[in-house]
Amino acid sequence: MRVLVLGGDGYLGWPTALHLSANGYEVAVADNYARRSYDAELGATSLVPIAPLARRVAGWSEVTGRTLAVFEGDLTDPVFTTEMIRTFAPAAIVHFAEQRSAPYSMIDQAHAVYTQTNNVIGTLNLLYAIAEVDPTIHLVKLGTMGEYGTPNIDIEEGWLEVSHNGRTDRMLYPKRPGSFYHLSKVHDSHNIEFACRAFGLRATDLNQGIVYGQETEETTRHPALATRFDYDAVFGTVLNRLVVQAVCGHPLTVYGTGRQIRGMLDIRDTVECIRLAVANPAEPGEFRVFNQFTEEFSVMGLAEMIKELFPRPVEIATVDNPRVEADEHYYHAAHSRLLDLGLRPHLLSDTLIESLFDITERHRANVDPSLFEPTVRWTAEADEVGPRATATVG
Amino acid sequence: MRVLVLGGDGYLGWPTALHLSANGYEVAVADNYARRSYDAELGATSLVPIAPLARRVAGWSEVTGRTLAVFEGDLTDPVFTTEMIRTFAPAAIVHFAEQRSAPYSMIDQAHAVYTQTNNVIGTLNLLYAIAEVDPTIHLVKLGTMGEYGTPNIDIEEGWLEVSHNGRTDRMLYPKRPGSFYHLSKVHDSHNIEFACRAFGLRATDLNQGIVYGQETEETTRHPALATRFDYDAVFGTVLNRLVVQAVCGHPLTVYGTGRQIRGMLDIRDTVECIRLAVANPAEPGEFRVFNQFTEEFSVMGLAEMIKELFPRPVEIATVDNPRVEADEHYYHAAHSRLLDLGLRPHLLSDTLIESLFDITERHRANVDPSLFEPTVRWTAEADEVGPRATATVG
Repeated sequence: MRVLVLGGDGYLGWPTALHLSANGYEVAVADNYARRSYDAELGATSLVPIAPLARRVAGWSEVTGRTLAVFEGDLTDPVFTTEMIRTFAPAAIVHFAEQRSAPYSMIDQAHAVYTQTNNVIGTLNLLYAIAEVDPTIHLVKLGTMGEYGTPNIDIEEGWLEVSHNGRTDRMLYPKRPGSFYHLSKVHDSHNIEFACRAFGLRATDLNQGIVYGQETEETTRHPALATRFDYDAVFGTVLNRLVVQAVCGHPLTVYGTGRQIRGMLDIRDTVECIRLAVANPAEPGEFRVFNQFTEEFSVMGLAEMIKELFPRPVEIATVDNPRVEADEHYYHAAHSRLLDLGLRPHLLSDTLIESLFDITERHRANVDPSLFEPTVRWTAEADEVGPRATATVG
Repeated sequence: MRVLVLGGDGYLGWPTALHLSANGYEVAVADNYARRSYDAELGATSLVPIAPLARRVAGWSEVTGRTLAVFEGDLTDPVFTTEMIRTFAPAAIVHFAEQRSAPYSMIDQAHAVYTQTNNVIGTLNLLYAIAEVDPTIHLVKLGTMGEYGTPNIDIEEGWLEVSHNGRTDRMLYPKRPGSFYHLSKVHDSHNIEFACRAFGLRATDLNQGIVYGQETEETTRHPALATRFDYDAVFGTVLNRLVVQAVCGHPLTVYGTGRQIRGMLDIRDTVECIRLAVANPAEPGEFRVFNQFTEEFSVMGLAEMIKELFPRPVEIATVDNPRVEADEHYYHAAHSRLLDLGLRPHLLSDTLIESLFDITERHRANVDPSLFEPTVRWTAEADEVGPRATATVG
């Protein structure tokens, strides 16, 4: 069975492609290398060096004898998108090919527009291409738990049974996210749900939590197979960033009170969740949503865990929260559907964090501590300057 | 007080600009003439001839002595958008400047992408421009009742009190619309609500029903002040189209059973609703939603009303519904907030419909009956062709 992984050169797309290939799927990866270009723009690099895509693919072939097809191009180009799908004829498409950083989307007007154009229009082109080439293709789309925001009621998996004035309906769960990036995923979800109704497509929207970790069973088989490890304030996910700060003797920076709670998961569970979604497709016309995370943590809870585990003394520093988000809030989110399909979570353990300490120690010379500092603020500054004027990235 | 009307050359933007000017506001209109270019693309024209914008503005000045400033440009151009707002320094911005046809958005991939880019990115640029130039500007944005779809519970005005597992929250009303156009307005609503939270903007989202009628107190003061009257299957609103069919001796075409129910309003109420929203601004940081319609009708109910009133015999013909929508559904939508502000509705009466018969009779020679036929289908045809292959517009 053929699976096309869009964004297959990225932090999670690459390990997913390997995991699917290792599990017997015939895999192609597509990318426009946008993620690598953000590094150049931001003056950042992956802590762990990553090989060019061609070298990665060759490395996988050397280790396993399996090949990965490669498509280079951009989903905002509808001709590229349609022809790629016609050529490869996949049974499933895993779609990671979006700008994935909330701070990046909030740098200024141009970055907000880029993020929503790239993500929403790219996905819209993909929906039309699937409808035109083969509506039976199962779309497995990466969403985010951030789409929901932090409502004062339990978060369900995409849909909510609503009772109102004596009547009931099953409705799309109301979304109220916290950045133009997260909004782009909300827009995607609405567009995809409609395409399932209007064009009869089948889709799984995976509302993923914050991913931590850097190694999977497949990426550790050869240095050329390593995936990214981002620790900067724009693209670094929180646990990875805190680990790097600890290793460098830098205070662990926590935004606001650190009482914000988020769903999180191990990178090894990400790749397995994708495999499970591909192996158990949605029905024709079905728009289904899985919440893809395994545990809930507060940011301060993570910082304290790292402080306790790290062998040297570590400080925790709270900094003004650059984001607009509730410091304290109710948070309880359902996440049973992937468990029902057989997911066996890697819960966050001392072992995982200690392995991240090891990875970081090996590459410590690569760390640029200036990248820890959040430079993108959500709000306009107090007086005459607008929101675009407060970013100093680039 | 200065008010900037974006899309001020369109069907409703133009009469709104006149109504605000007549009520003492200092008004500027902005347009990129996209609506006139769709005519050329579709081979259609307004039944009632409309003057070029410069002539319209001159006509208004001749009749009233009042001037309207004009800005020519495109909201997807962020420099134009920001400089226009900086130059005119409005206290309120009324935003009609979007592609407003569901069928147009469903012609093919290119029209879906155009609609979402034009509408969503244009509005996103506008949010950044307001935040940068003056966050106290009140944004009055035209949404659509179509954003809600046809849920099985009562439709409220933008927000919904939700109880779930013993907890409650005030949430954005869940949206599940029926075209990529309607989706563009859903995306706008989410982006605007976030901008109110993050940038402290103030916004009124007017979820408007289907507008009928062609004359307002101001547009009838001079022939150069007339607004559009569209009767084609792409841009014509349903009541206006049915009236033109009756006058031409064409069967009144009703999609499906005609039992679809929609909220509707008179064009004279549209312009007054906008005035009321401008005169009673949202609070700083507030995202409020008004449902802007006055009565609910089924499409078949409208057709039967016209058949009864028209002096010659009229047939009603049901045609295959080109849209994906429920033929029969619950529909009950709140619409009290504009009434609370003082709206005194023009309910659909024999007089209004008869005046539309008169307008149509006067311009009957302009009618092209081939434009009645719906040529845009929502779904892919049965076999090998994709959704883009079924449109024959243009």
